[in-house]
Amino acid sequence: LAARLAHIPPTVFSEMSALAVRTGALNLGQGFPDVDGPASVVAAVKEALEAGANQYAPGIGVPALRAAIARHQQRHYGLEIDPDREVVVTTGCTEAVAAALLGLVDPGDEVVVLEPYYDSYVAMLDMCGARRRPVTLRAPDFRPDPDELRAAITDRTKLVLLNTPHNPTGTVLTREELQLVADLAIEHDVLVVTDEVYEHLVFDDRAHVPIATLPGMWERTLTLSSAGKSYSFTGWKVGWATGPAPLVRAVLAAKQWLTFTSGSPLQPAVAHALDHEPDWPTELARDLQARRDLLCDGLAAAGLEPRVPEGTYFATTDVSHLGWADGRELCLALPERAGVVAIPTQGFYDDAEAGRQLVRWAFCKQPDVIAEGVRRLAAAD
Amino acid sequence: LAARLAHIPPTVFSEMSALAVRTGALNLGQGFPDVDGPASVVAAVKEALEAGANQYAPGIGVPALRAAIARHQQRHYGLEIDPDREVVVTTGCTEAVAAALLGLVDPGDEVVVLEPYYDSYVAMLDMCGARRRPVTLRAPDFRPDPDELRAAITDRTKLVLLNTPHNPTGTVLTREELQLVADLAIEHDVLVVTDEVYEHLVFDDRAHVPIATLPGMWERTLTLSSAGKSYSFTGWKVGWATGPAPLVRAVLAAKQWLTFTSGSPLQPAVAHALDHEPDWPTELARDLQARRDLLCDGLAAAGLEPRVPEGTYFATTDVSHLGWADGRELCLALPERAGVVAIPTQGFYDDAEAGRQLVRWAFCKQPDVIAEGVRRLAAAD
Ligand SMILES: CSCCC(=O)C(=O)O
Ligand SMILES: CSCCC(=O)C(=O)O
Repeated sequence: LAARLAHIPPTVFSEMSALAVRTGALNLGQGFPDVDGPASVVAAVKEALEAGANQYAPGIGVPALRAAIARHQQRHYGLEIDPDREVVVTTGCTEAVAAALLGLVDPGDEVVVLEPYYDSYVAMLDMCGARRRPVTLRAPDFRPDPDELRAAITDRTKLVLLNTPHNPTGTVLTREELQLVADLAIEHDVLVVTDEVYEHLVFDDRAHVPIATLPGMWERTLTLSSAGKSYSFTGWKVGWATGPAPLVRAVLAAKQWLTFTSGSPLQPAVAHALDHEPDWPTELARDLQARRDLLCDGLAAAGLEPRVPEGTYFATTDVSHLGWADGRELCLALPERAGVVAIPTQGFYDDAEAGRQLVRWAFCKQPDVIAEGVRRLAAAD
Repeated sequence: LAARLAHIPPTVFSEMSALAVRTGALNLGQGFPDVDGPASVVAAVKEALEAGANQYAPGIGVPALRAAIARHQQRHYGLEIDPDREVVVTTGCTEAVAAALLGLVDPGDEVVVLEPYYDSYVAMLDMCGARRRPVTLRAPDFRPDPDELRAAITDRTKLVLLNTPHNPTGTVLTREELQLVADLAIEHDVLVVTDEVYEHLVFDDRAHVPIATLPGMWERTLTLSSAGKSYSFTGWKVGWATGPAPLVRAVLAAKQWLTFTSGSPLQPAVAHALDHEPDWPTELARDLQARRDLLCDGLAAAGLEPRVPEGTYFATTDVSHLGWADGRELCLALPERAGVVAIPTQGFYDDAEAGRQLVRWAFCKQPDVIAEGVRRLAAAD
């Protein structure tokens, strides 16, 4: 194993989903829904297969999808995007993250990242030789501290890697929080890469604000998203990056060597989803909000008072309330003791202490699955 | 743009396919067929979509596909492979190459590679900080010179990156050539990564020999392939790596951060192809052989005597016979002068002089398209 990977453990999502399959436990770990997205979008894949969308798509993405992404950004956020120069399609947001970092970050560059971080961020930052500068979202409210942001984003910063709505905490950054990041990014001439895959999955009438929409930010921001979470097709892995042409070119420069292209019959179907099922994600969010409440109430009843998330698929709990000092140990014991799988998030912190007792629970599952999960937790000893 | 990419030009395949779209020229450049693969495989995607194969596939690949790949290796090459530890599914062979190199090559490692090389090899080797040691396949017969191989593969070598059947030259390495590589790899304790995406596309009753089947080689070889070329679905980007568990784990260690997983409804369909359309690739090869002859005869009649390829989709010509000293200049002029697009291969050489006058022509197109292409070439001035 090359040195760049030797110290990076395998992704906890694979580990925990394999554990769920092996033990037959109910999987409230990895974030994927148990009901697929719109039938019209599945039908659109079938049409694309028949229409011959089976050979290499252009590396930058099929024109229909790039145009649909541009229309989506216009409709939701008022952003005017050139689909030929300001959009690139990727193999899910994971590849967009990998290609953005490989394309923009040089060894030794300082990158500010919200902690807890999604695990691919830190693996790719390590592969790029970045110096990581975490800003920690702390329990119980998991908000960024303005003073910590000010201390972290300096003239030494190359790039801020944001994530809102934030996985795993469920925090949705407010306009004020984003304005502070924007002010600091502009003051110190810093790039922003922002992972917004849960852009439509926000609750309680909150608004998702893309930082690219704030004054002076478009020209320094790469916005990453995907169809997987918005349309409940997480396995299709059709994602994208939007931003000013030079930043999009940097993503493409790396991506062409990672996969070149992917999903030729899936890309036109995602274009169909964006154009013809524009309200589906909002309805999903409404539905998810009820399931969030079901999970959170159940967790509380089981003695695991959660932080009620503002967005995403996930709620986080402090398992020390149940007498477990270590969330990972609990999660490894949980399939046996309760028939449930969850994700320990301590691996998403540089300082393992900060997250040792935190566990993430997914509510992107059918109500009866969530109900059964919390019933099992309450019944477990 | 990060320094690791700053000196790497965009892939010539995107450049030339974009030129074909822009000019309406006939595309004999990028290697993709103009007839899709088996209808039963398309039907299998539709079934997978309906059966709910729409959420994340395991990072290592869906079990049915890994089992089908193992059976394929057994049936064709007598290799016994553990589908749970010796196979990993990737986003096409491009991702398998990227992940194998990121997973195995440290900065400063010496890597021997056949030249001309597929362009992603050199980009990824550069990204890994490898020292590249080319062994040149020279016109007119494009065979590796045994003395050059002996001089190249030494105790300083970390890995040999092979490609057979070889793109762009069409050379299929013989058992004797592969045995020499194997002897040297064993003598110097070197790993081999071998890209065999054209494994089934060999002509004139030649046999493709995977170097992993030679004595002592399984344990040091990662074999990469994909469904794209064998089943004429280049856009699906379902590929794989097979080999001993530690090498497969190295691919997975990198790949989990590049895309995590991809193509959940396509993976079961590729399993179906491997299991239920086992003879389709051989029939494609028979058919392609006739199209190879059509192209080669036509090129010769147009004054461009080609090297008749032993395998792959491609024939290479020396355009200095037509008075062009530079194949890239010819290829940029060709859409205008002849309404045809081809690929200059000079960018696939470290020593641009060695390939300056070489141009690659694809024959994975319908006979009338090939006939029209060579007619246009013959008619051009
Ligand atoms: C790419 S696997 C992880 C899926 C996901 O987004 C999550 O569970 O956080
Ligand atoms: C990945 S684009 C190039 C396709 C191909 O294999 C070739 O044309 O050589």
